[in-house]
Order: sequence, then C-alpha cells, then structure tokens
Amino acid sequence: MTDSDLTQNAFLGGALHLWQPARGYRAGIDPVLLAASAPVRSGQSVLDMGCGVGTACLCLGTRVAGLTLTGIELQPDLAALARRNGQEAGQHLTVYEGDIAAPPAALTAQSFDHVLMNPPFFERGHGPAVSHPGREVGRELEAGDLPMWMTMARKRLRQGGVLTMIHRTESLDKIMQNLTGFGGVEVQPLSARAGRNARLVLIRATKARKSASILHNPLVMHLGPRHMADGDDYTPEISAVLRGPAPLAAFGKTLQG
Amino acid sequence: MTDSDLTQNAFLGGALHLWQPARGYRAGIDPVLLAASAPVRSGQSVLDMGCGVGTACLCLGTRVAGLTLTGIELQPDLAALARRNGQEAGQHLTVYEGDIAAPPAALTAQSFDHVLMNPPFFERGHGPAVSHPGREVGRELEAGDLPMWMTMARKRLRQGGVLTMIHRTESLDKIMQNLTGFGGVEVQPLSARAGRNARLVLIRATKARKSASILHNPLVMHLGPRHMADGDDYTPEISAVLRGPAPLAAFGKTLQG
Repeated sequence: MTDSDLTQNAFLGGALHLWQPARGYRAGIDPVLLAASAPVRSGQSVLDMGCGVGTACLCLGTRVAGLTLTGIELQPDLAALARRNGQEAGQHLTVYEGDIAAPPAALTAQSFDHVLMNPPFFERGHGPAVSHPGREVGRELEAGDLPMWMTMARKRLRQGGVLTMIHRTESLDKIMQNLTGFGGVEVQPLSARAGRNARLVLIRATKARKSASILHNPLVMHLGPRHMADGDDYTPEISAVLRGPAPLAAFGKTLQG
Repeated sequence: MTDSDLTQNAFLGGALHLWQPARGYRAGIDPVLLAASAPVRSGQSVLDMGCGVGTACLCLGTRVAGLTLTGIELQPDLAALARRNGQEAGQHLTVYEGDIAAPPAALTAQSFDHVLMNPPFFERGHGPAVSHPGREVGRELEAGDLPMWMTMARKRLRQGGVLTMIHRTESLDKIMQNLTGFGGVEVQPLSARAGRNARLVLIRATKARKSASILHNPLVMHLGPRHMADGDDYTPEISAVLRGPAPLAAFGKTLQG
C-alpha cells in the first residue's frame, strides 16, 4: 500500500496516531475499549491476537508504559502497518504475520502475562477465515474458529495470565464454552443506551484459576434514549476512555493506570 | 415425618399451599421465580429436576393449566411431600425418588418439552451430593455435579425442548460450559437492588438450536438502595409474581399465562 491508500487517525485524544487502510475494516471503538479494560501493569508482556494495525495494543502501551507488546496478524498489509504504527509511536511492538490456526514457532515458544482479543466475525458458511471483514449485525464466527482463537489464547498465556476480550453478546455461549481452563470469569455487558440489552461484552478470565464468575451491571455507552444530537453522544465514562489514555471503570472498578 | 414436623405455607397469594419440613431447607423465592419464567404452554410436559416438595412445578401448574408434571427428588421425605402437595393441589404430578446421577429407568424412558432446574449447592470438598443443603454465600457446586445435572437435562429434553434454570451467578461459567448441545441461550440477571451486580441468574436454552445468545438487562428484585422498611420491599414486578400466579416479564417479555 502507498500512503495514498492510507489515512492517519488520532486516537486517545491525539496521544496516539495510527495509519490504517482508507478502505475496508477500520478500527472502531471496540479495540480502544478493550485496551482500556485490560488489567495490565508496567513490565508485563501482552499478546494482541489479530492485532490489525495495532490499535488495541498501542492504545494499551499509550496508557501503561514499559510493556512488551506482541501482535499476530494474518494480513501482511495490516501487519506492516502495525509495525510502522508501533515505531512511530515509539513503542516496542513485535508483529508476527501469520494465521492463528498455524502460528509461527517464534510465537508459540513464548508465553505472556496478558492476551487481548477482539476476534473478527466470519460470515456463516463462507469458508476460510478472513480477518476483520466488517462487523455488520448478523455475522457470526464460524463454528470452529472461535474455539481455535480461544485455545491459542490459553496456550500462549502463562499460568495465572489474563485474557481480556471484547465480542458480540450473540456469541456469549460459545465464548463461555471455550473458557475451559480459565476461572475468575468476569462479564461486563456494554449497552448502547440505558435499558437496552447489551450487544457487546467485555470478558476477562484468568488461566488456571477456579474462582467464581461475576456478571457486572451493564456499562452504558451513549447518553439518552436514542441518537439526538449532532456529533457523538458518549457517556462521560466512555468519552474519557476514547479521548485520553484513561482506564475504563469496567469490571466494577477503575484499573490502576 | 409426622405433620408436627411440617409447616404448610401459602404460595402465589394463597393459590397454592405446600407442606414442607419445619427444619432444614425451605423453599425461598427462587423456585417461584423459576416457575414464573418458564415459557410453558398448556398441554406440555415438564420435568422438575431436584423438585424438593414440588415448589417450582406446582407453582408452574398453578399458572398454566393442563400440564403433565414430573419431578425427581433424592430425599424420600421430600419426594413424599411433593406427591402429597400435588394431590392436595389437584395437580397431575408424578414424583420419582432417585439420584440425578442414576435416574430410574421409568424416567429415562421419557422425554419432555421442558426441564426446570434449581440445582442445589454443594460445599466444596464435602463428598457426595446432598440435596438442597441451604444456600449460604460461598457454597458452590462440586466440580462434576453441575455437569451431571445439565447432561441429564439435555438427555431428557426432546429436540427443541427448553431448559429453564435459576442459579448463582458465581457458577455462570460452569453453567455455560455445560450448555453444549443447546442454543438460543438467554441470560436474565436478577439484581437484588438497582446498581448491584446480579447474584442470581435465570437461564433459558433450547436443545439442538443454534440461534444467538442474548444477555438481558438486570431485573431488579427489591426497591431502594438497601432494606429500609418493615416487611418485604419487592419491586412491583417481583411482587406480582410472588403474590399471584403471574408470569415474570423476564427475558425481555411477559410470558403467555
């Protein structure tokens, strides 16, 4: 891709700039919320599975200094952009180009304190997985793909390591069914507006723990009963996360930054 | 047990009276909420697993006429009371005495439109399962027991049959992990008070379906931020369910009665 095929966009109130393709999948707020809700401390290692242009891991590295960041991405163009974005942000990000189903040996030799995951959706019956083909309503992971992603997450986490993921509520059953080997499962529903059922969930789970599950009250993303005004209408809490490298007060408490 | 060891208590505003032991586990509101949220139509068959004195299935039979009700209960005293309660209520209830782990052949020969389940808690590390040993905070199902209950539910449901259960949120991960073979999973959190995380969940799932999961907004059980007044302080919706044979507007809609 040449730069004319790209846009450079500001994230976290301008604390981070990311190149991404002008067409096709573009980072929305999901990876930003994901990064804001991972309980990561300085000095830890993080694997961003399906990292795209590096949005989630670089947002995380902007909030928490001193991380060792690693990504894996199927699409060569996006992997190259992730590397470029990491360099320009001055962050230590290693990106492997490869398939989650057959990750490179250099990656499978490592284990991590954290895995971030914002799995793509695959249209039912559309054959091989494609990365991030847009997230329209009604798309779902192919049977078999989500288990593969979650198995990879479990394998790459150290004992006691933490998976943080964001996904559509419609796949909550499949996500939970593939959390074998994890405990301390926390579900944070994200409701578009007060009183609406959550279409998105943040999920956190700890490898090789047996502690109880927690289902948190929904976190509301937008003000008012419907879209009323020009511009965005995010709630103050969500707005703070999107406009600056603030942690999200998800999972019942604000993370230490 | 002689009648002096028993109390007879009114349920559903006096529409149902149930004998239960004066000591030990006594029916709370959980089986009443369970019965009120099962999407049962007249003419259908219902299996109440771990039926105790028959609270859930007889509450259901009070709301919906023309059901074929079946229960299984480990403790002979409770099974006998369930039979007596069914007779005195004029409901067609068959109760098998037996262990969920080794159900009688007469039961395993049948399949049902609905299964109701309010699984007991087993204290960790306390050996064999005991039925309904009280539900203090911190008790959990033994590893191995909940899967057994859920396997039995799946086996006894017809294709397209519906499991409705109530359980503690702390076991949400284990419940979901054992919902293999089900789809259309709906989770209805029950919050004690507005803004508190749900400690209880109603869960509904359909055997041999693949439809998407839904996570409903919490249903609040009590008014106000804490217990303020003498007597109970149930929200009007919960109160209507407890005081009369009303369906619960759980899972996003009111059931047809």
